[in-house]
Amino acid sequence: MKVHIIMGSKSDKNVAESAEKILDEFGVKYDTVVASAHRTPDYLKKIVEESDADVFIGIAGLSAALPGVIAAHTVKPVIGVPVSGKVNLDAVLSIVQMPPGVPVAAVGLDRGENAALLAVEILAVSDKSLSKKLMDYRKKLQEQITTSG
Amino acid sequence: MKVHIIMGSKSDKNVAESAEKILDEFGVKYDTVVASAHRTPDYLKKIVEESDADVFIGIAGLSAALPGVIAAHTVKPVIGVPVSGKVNLDAVLSIVQMPPGVPVAAVGLDRGENAALLAVEILAVSDKSLSKKLMDYRKKLQEQITTSG
Amino acid sequence: MKVHIIMGSKSDKNVAESAEKILDEFGVKYDTVVASAHRTPDYLKKIVEESDADVFIGIAGLSAALPGVIAAHTVKPVIGVPVSGKVNLDAVLSIVQMPPGVPVAAVGLDRGENAALLAVEILAVSDKSLSKKLMDYRKKLQEQITTSG
Amino acid sequence: MKVHIIMGSKSDKNVAESAEKILDEFGVKYDTVVASAHRTPDYLKKIVEESDADVFIGIAGLSAALPGVIAAHTVKPVIGVPVSGKVNLDAVLSIVQMPPGVPVAAVGLDRGENAALLAVEILAVSDKSLSKKLMDYRKKLQEQITTSG
Amino acid sequence: MKVHIIMGSKSDKNVAESAEKILDEFGVKYDTVVASAHRTPDYLKKIVEESDADVFIGIAGLSAALPGVIAAHTVKPVIGVPVSGKVNLDAVLSIVQMPPGVPVAAVGLDRGENAALLAVEILAVSDKSLSKKLMDYRKKLQEQITTSG
Amino acid sequence: MKVHIIMGSKSDKNVAESAEKILDEFGVKYDTVVASAHRTPDYLKKIVEESDADVFIGIAGLSAALPGVIAAHTVKPVIGVPVSGKVNLDAVLSIVQMPPGVPVAAVGLDRGENAALLAVEILAVSDKSLSKKLMDYRKKLQEQITTSG
Amino acid sequence: MKVHIIMGSKSDKNVAESAEKILDEFGVKYDTVVASAHRTPDYLKKIVEESDADVFIGIAGLSAALPGVIAAHTVKPVIGVPVSGKVNLDAVLSIVQMPPGVPVAAVGLDRGENAALLAVEILAVSDKSLSKKLMDYRKKLQEQITTSG
Amino acid sequence: MKVHIIMGSKSDKNVAESAEKILDEFGVKYDTVVASAHRTPDYLKKIVEESDADVFIGIAGLSAALPGVIAAHTVKPVIGVPVSGKVNLDAVLSIVQMPPGVPVAAVGLDRGENAALLAVEILAVSDKSLSKKLMDYRKKLQEQITTSG
Repeated sequence: MKVHIIMGSKSDKNVAESAEKILDEFGVKYDTVVASAHRTPDYLKKIVEESDADVFIGIAGLSAALPGVIAAHTVKPVIGVPVSGKVNLDAVLSIVQMPPGVPVAAVGLDRGENAALLAVEILAVSDKSLSKKLMDYRKKLQEQITTSG
Repeated sequence: MKVHIIMGSKSDKNVAESAEKILDEFGVKYDTVVASAHRTPDYLKKIVEESDADVFIGIAGLSAALPGVIAAHTVKPVIGVPVSGKVNLDAVLSIVQMPPGVPVAAVGLDRGENAALLAVEILAVSDKSLSKKLMDYRKKLQEQITTSG
Repeated sequence: MKVHIIMGSKSDKNVAESAEKILDEFGVKYDTVVASAHRTPDYLKKIVEESDADVFIGIAGLSAALPGVIAAHTVKPVIGVPVSGKVNLDAVLSIVQMPPGVPVAAVGLDRGENAALLAVEILAVSDKSLSKKLMDYRKKLQEQITTSG
Repeated sequence: MKVHIIMGSKSDKNVAESAEKILDEFGVKYDTVVASAHRTPDYLKKIVEESDADVFIGIAGLSAALPGVIAAHTVKPVIGVPVSGKVNLDAVLSIVQMPPGVPVAAVGLDRGENAALLAVEILAVSDKSLSKKLMDYRKKLQEQITTSG
Repeated sequence: MKVHIIMGSKSDKNVAESAEKILDEFGVKYDTVVASAHRTPDYLKKIVEESDADVFIGIAGLSAALPGVIAAHTVKPVIGVPVSGKVNLDAVLSIVQMPPGVPVAAVGLDRGENAALLAVEILAVSDKSLSKKLMDYRKKLQEQITTSG
Repeated sequence: MKVHIIMGSKSDKNVAESAEKILDEFGVKYDTVVASAHRTPDYLKKIVEESDADVFIGIAGLSAALPGVIAAHTVKPVIGVPVSGKVNLDAVLSIVQMPPGVPVAAVGLDRGENAALLAVEILAVSDKSLSKKLMDYRKKLQEQITTSG
Repeated sequence: MKVHIIMGSKSDKNVAESAEKILDEFGVKYDTVVASAHRTPDYLKKIVEESDADVFIGIAGLSAALPGVIAAHTVKPVIGVPVSGKVNLDAVLSIVQMPPGVPVAAVGLDRGENAALLAVEILAVSDKSLSKKLMDYRKKLQEQITTSG
Repeated sequence: MKVHIIMGSKSDKNVAESAEKILDEFGVKYDTVVASAHRTPDYLKKIVEESDADVFIGIAGLSAALPGVIAAHTVKPVIGVPVSGKVNLDAVLSIVQMPPGVPVAAVGLDRGENAALLAVEILAVSDKSLSKKLMDYRKKLQEQITTSG
């Protein structure tokens, strides 16, 4: 099972890395690539159509169209990560508001780690070992909090 | 495989039905229930924890906290549907903006059908027959558009 | 010289017609077609790449990505028309905020007529007869206003 | 009489301290704890249900759901403090917009001191000595201003 | 114990009535009056200062300043209800954003019933019979929901 | 003729000074004072009612209610200056949105100089020497721009 | 003394009439004219420059630039009235946010009557009879409210 | 063929330079000038009316009215560039929302380079050598991206 991380430009690298870190932690394989919905549409299409990934993560910095355009070329789950900038509202709203028939799963602003966790949750639907790891991860998270106060 | 549709109040019925219609079309089983994050938190927790569903859809009308609270009680994928009202921005933003560790997959305002399609896409990761149906569905959608103009 | 009007779905028909009316008034030829950035990306690409139009007008109802995706497939001028809906801010912002290198010329919410006028202005750069007609049109507009008060 | 301050993560510490400072000034007892609506829902529930406090203050940084989830587990007054971040509007709106039946008393962005003062005002309804202290506090505030210009 | 409901103009009557209905249900006494922060500031001051109420509810339709101005004249708890109109964001934000030292407890847009419930919760801090009634009310609410699905 | 500058707290000093600088330049007399709509309502009322100024400038930092409350106590022109902060939209909207019967003249965020210029314009209605100075000021402004490019 | 009401298009007639009604009530003379900042800039300039009015009211429906462009052609006080439409935020913000040196006095959305009252307040600076009428008007307003509850 | 870059104040210089850089790269001639819609309206009008440019770029920093006022004085294509500041939404919305009959082609916040590219695209409608250069530019852009990942 595999996740394909696509970022619109190299400037979204930090968000991609926060996703990669989580996938590493769960032992989930992934490819990361730079491809732009507006500047390299054919290259992006080729990447999506030839990908053997089960889930896509689209990180959308300079324009928020990337996750939607990925979703246009596949029926696999696409998770969209808005990236914070000068307006912010446009990033969040553009990713969430998709036409009927082509959903994108939006996560919070700059939340690369949550995009990766959502991808792991999706893969865990048919991989019980991932499901177990997710519960351990959540438990660890809870222990950090309950022992901090 | 199964989807659990949870709506915060009966007034979100139309959005739930648009999700049910898609799941029926794909032959995916589902339960639909009314449970509120704020008014019946224990009942909601019980439903989520005892559910045998693989994916949850949280439809969030009166307050937008529902999908996040579902996600708090499970590590299965949770899809959140904001419902349009007097402010709208609060519905969309509250569902998207989750803390690290507990992702919600937000779809567009009132987009019950996209929440259901996303659920089908998630189930299709391990069910090739659903994957085939999704491609047929997308093709049908495209024919409707290309023959309309 | 020709303009290509592309709308994302039939529900954007009224806005397309307000553009067509202006183009008719100026005697500018146009094609109008329904094609969706998310639901029929290949069909949209084909239309844009094979078009003999000099200017594109993208009318973006269900999702605001259409004008940007048109711009991704051409270096001809692309005018984007946001269409009013439940959030509105997302429509306007998504169309305006494009990455460097792939501009879209955004006009106001539902302003099909202004998109058409902008297209005529662009064509008039090299067609002096259109330039003359534009000045007449502006004058007529002014007379309507100055004789109304 | 007692106030229970609950913050969603340690990063909200500054806002909690601005509340504690006011409660100290009024001689009102309080407990402060870290508990998250999304990451430790059961721990949060236990804290709220077993609390002997009369008023709760929920400080909501990473996600704005905390005050609402506290209110879901108690019928005592719950004061919600939105914490400033990248979007801000979502923090304020999520806390204010609660479903009928489960109110939260929202105060301004990062206004831990006002949350504490509101808590003191609530306790003062039945504790005349606090009422007296509040009037003294307000007077002091006024003197600072009227003698500053 | 008593609640004072102040609305900025008669056009806010519906919201005031939704508050009155809840207070009637709980057997809590109240006065309702029309007084404007901007049009009758002295009258408003007189009402607030001479009031024997324990809690104020300010319903703010035409301008959102009412709850803040009530809070300026008392150290008793003041609950502010924004009322929906043409902009909405201004109503919510103006009521929430108060300077340090003079808190207002904001509830959701048009949520007169939640303002009243919050008032009852505040009075219940020192009146155990109200506390019992609140728990019964919450239980009734929960039964309506859990038996509806 | 005189202008009364009222700021809600000392932290608005910079904006007040930008207004004072303009009034000095025009030789218009002014008083500057700190008074808060929420923290010192009676003091504010006294200042407004006893003022011999012809125009008021209310600089509204911590809460945006100040200009409206000044307007509530006088029928002289009141100019409101929103001050930038964490949300900004609330500052601008709260000052602009006044109920019918009690207008406030809002200027732009942090635009103390424009508030002062507006005050001078108002005084110039009956003082022709100020009118002359305003035209000179505008001309100087224009020369700075036209000789800069 | 005179007020000049300028509206951007006939569709702003209702807002203009609400201003006229107030000016009639105060016995203040006025001219009303349709002139557009964008469609008839020279006509607008001529009207403003040749006007013998002391105060301008710019009612800005189709685009919000009108009051600012009036202010560009005069140093007399200009009051801007945003008119509600599909976005609303743009109308309010465009009128308030002016560059330093050219102020506009913004009033609330659709508040033609407040623009007129502000104009009367400005004229009253040098006309004591208007000042007296304003106090009577305010008193009448207050009686309507205090006798209504 | 020529482009006229007009900025509202010298503080918009960086955005103007990003446009100039692109025009230099394409060998397109241009003039750059500072002229303000509000502070030097007559000078701005003169510049626009006497210009021999084919396309205008209006860079709108201090107030967003500049592109619209340029459009009011010409029927040539006008491209508006909003400049980021304290509110941002007002800049974007003011430039996009124009009345019917006088279009402005809005590009993204601070996107001087996209304004220039749009201008080049417009000139390329009748200049095939520019059209060729645009395709080369796009290709170069694509190579940078596809060889970066």
